[in-house]
Amino acid sequence: MVLPNFKENLAKYAKLLISNGINVQEGHTVVLSIDVDQAELARLLVKEAYAHGAHEVILQWADDVIKRENMLHMPLERLETVPDYRIAEMNYWMDKKASRLGVRSADPDALAGVDADKLAKATRAMSLAYKPLSIATQANKVSWTVAAAAGTAWAKKVFPNAASDEEAVDLLWDQIFKTCRVYEEDPVAAWKAHEETLSAKAKILNEEQFDALHYTAPGTDLTLGMPKNHVWESAGSLNAQGEYFIANMPTEEVFSAPDYRRADGYVTSTKPLSYNGNIIEGIKVTFKDGEIIDVTAEKGDEVMKKLVFENTGARSLGEVALVPDKSPISQSGITFFNTLFDENASNHLAIGAAYATSVKGGENFGSEEALKEAGLNRSDVHVDFMIGSNQMNVDGIRADGTVVPIFRNGDWAI
Amino acid sequence: MVLPNFKENLAKYAKLLISNGINVQEGHTVVLSIDVDQAELARLLVKEAYAHGAHEVILQWADDVIKRENMLHMPLERLETVPDYRIAEMNYWMDKKASRLGVRSADPDALAGVDADKLAKATRAMSLAYKPLSIATQANKVSWTVAAAAGTAWAKKVFPNAASDEEAVDLLWDQIFKTCRVYEEDPVAAWKAHEETLSAKAKILNEEQFDALHYTAPGTDLTLGMPKNHVWESAGSLNAQGEYFIANMPTEEVFSAPDYRRADGYVTSTKPLSYNGNIIEGIKVTFKDGEIIDVTAEKGDEVMKKLVFENTGARSLGEVALVPDKSPISQSGITFFNTLFDENASNHLAIGAAYATSVKGGENFGSEEALKEAGLNRSDVHVDFMIGSNQMNVDGIRADGTVVPIFRNGDWAI
Repeated sequence: MVLPNFKENLAKYAKLLISNGINVQEGHTVVLSIDVDQAELARLLVKEAYAHGAHEVILQWADDVIKRENMLHMPLERLETVPDYRIAEMNYWMDKKASRLGVRSADPDALAGVDADKLAKATRAMSLAYKPLSIATQANKVSWTVAAAAGTAWAKKVFPNAASDEEAVDLLWDQIFKTCRVYEEDPVAAWKAHEETLSAKAKILNEEQFDALHYTAPGTDLTLGMPKNHVWESAGSLNAQGEYFIANMPTEEVFSAPDYRRADGYVTSTKPLSYNGNIIEGIKVTFKDGEIIDVTAEKGDEVMKKLVFENTGARSLGEVALVPDKSPISQSGITFFNTLFDENASNHLAIGAAYATSVKGGENFGSEEALKEAGLNRSDVHVDFMIGSNQMNVDGIRADGTVVPIFRNGDWAI
Repeated sequence: MVLPNFKENLAKYAKLLISNGINVQEGHTVVLSIDVDQAELARLLVKEAYAHGAHEVILQWADDVIKRENMLHMPLERLETVPDYRIAEMNYWMDKKASRLGVRSADPDALAGVDADKLAKATRAMSLAYKPLSIATQANKVSWTVAAAAGTAWAKKVFPNAASDEEAVDLLWDQIFKTCRVYEEDPVAAWKAHEETLSAKAKILNEEQFDALHYTAPGTDLTLGMPKNHVWESAGSLNAQGEYFIANMPTEEVFSAPDYRRADGYVTSTKPLSYNGNIIEGIKVTFKDGEIIDVTAEKGDEVMKKLVFENTGARSLGEVALVPDKSPISQSGITFFNTLFDENASNHLAIGAAYATSVKGGENFGSEEALKEAGLNRSDVHVDFMIGSNQMNVDGIRADGTVVPIFRNGDWAI
């Protein structure tokens, strides 16, 4: 590592993820998903978690190469049959109200070339098996944080002109530390200030309670109805136990859910989407009465069509998020090929499930039907795609038809 | 890595473990236990396993630092309660007749300083929970192989005078490759020749069917009764499906089980024992009518006493193994602080469970009682300790009292 003070900064980052991110408290159970190549960070996270009073830290190690080997060589029947012990394991996590910390460093191209149909079927089987967990997570029943680490293959993809693998990894760590405010003298305080800025925007939008949003940009003219009593959220959330956590680090977004029955028009993606190891670019989606009636992609067309048309609830939207084009990630000019970063560089929408918390009290509705009735989409998937640019305008439309500018030229207008 | 051709040799080693070791066949399920620091070897093993037709390779990643953190900070109640999903996972392996490949690279001192009582209780809870699996393994119901990889902390312990961590790791890999015959032009053929040498000794001992063995050396005068129809085994074994595998790589031993009811005298260990992260040295054990009536150790006395007196069946022996002092590992003069290597440098005994295969047909006896009746010890533990030296003589005593020299001055006499 040539990055100055790497070890100190990695330790500060681990502390930030444990204390500000999943906010570990005495007696907590923590499930940490991380790549084997990030063992140094994993050890720091485990030590911090126990130092904060955790009673158990469960490791879920992953590896790109081995995942690819499994996808290539395991018979489909094995991939589609999720063993009982995996379900029992999930139930143990839920029983212990385990916090979930996911550290993502995977090669965005790790699964490129794997048979798309096999991959889709395997992914769907896993999504179905883990549905209770994803429902609980999306309703913030437990604390969860998604963060990043600089994997070598990913770093080389983001910085293809770096002089060496080591330099690419250093450059990516530098971006992760920057966007997560690790270089600030007091990262914990810097995060608090950032959270306040975002929540001020959310407060205005929550008071306005727009009936609809209207997006215009080159290739985009889309109107999204908003549910009654919708809630705009930002960085921080409260879990069912009343504990504060931050779901994404870094984060720049203010987000809610559109009414899944009310989307009309068309929208064009502005950044690549990394989905299941595939890169999808130049997505064009057309909606009518809330449903996707046509979808094409310049790259990854087949994978994109399978995502939309072969998953329950994937023909409608579950999230709408506002991110100024001036966000540090966008200004870096870097395409990260990783949703955690790229979604924070750009306004985006998500195909699939809405967060239950996107309507007032939704986390306590108790049934899928009640959530749907309130306008929240239900699905086995949740995939963000980026639509923002410095040419995008967004208007809020009040129930009386008044138009209020929210974004002008890619930046906040309220 | 400064070791010449490291990548080529690592690939040859992976091939040897998969083809000669657990001998992967079309349709097999493989469980691979390995440290996260050995990810490079893990990827090679997974690729080889699928290339040999495996249908699923399940990774069980481990890490010394995280294991130590768990032992230090998890409440005892959590450590002692093995969750249901772990049992379900074990049942899945047994159901699939999964082969088990364990690659050991752990720091022998990883758990030093952890409260001995807490460690003993946690280890016992795991042993009890995994008892069905260890019974199935010891009866060769499935194929299993234990092998090694050069972990940094372990390498530094074996080679404390190495100029750098990298040099220590290189020196240890060099020993692993040497003792596993990876440097031979045709490692697969070299293994076959080695197996034949060992099985010739086993054949003589099986024909003799000695009634007892008598060990003498400085600090040792021990007589072990042998069960009727005992079986001496060496490198290779057949699993219940009739598939050939090698349980230990490297291996130099010819082994059977003594009658657990017939041990009298005393024996002194000649090499350090690495047990649960503790180093135990200078062990003296006294037997009467098969039972340990006294045990002391110059180092690790408390851990040794807990092992013997607080585990079911740990007061009797389950294995007797003959290894010439001239074996390559012994001749290297290196103490490996790792049973896989140190037991292959020396005659040894095991406290605890016998392998069911150590009496004729034992793998099909079906009940613990039948095995005990045949003289095979049953226990939740199986811990080897080393007793051989170039001053050790071993006699075989026939039923008619005739004495036949088996070992003289630490080498084969038959």
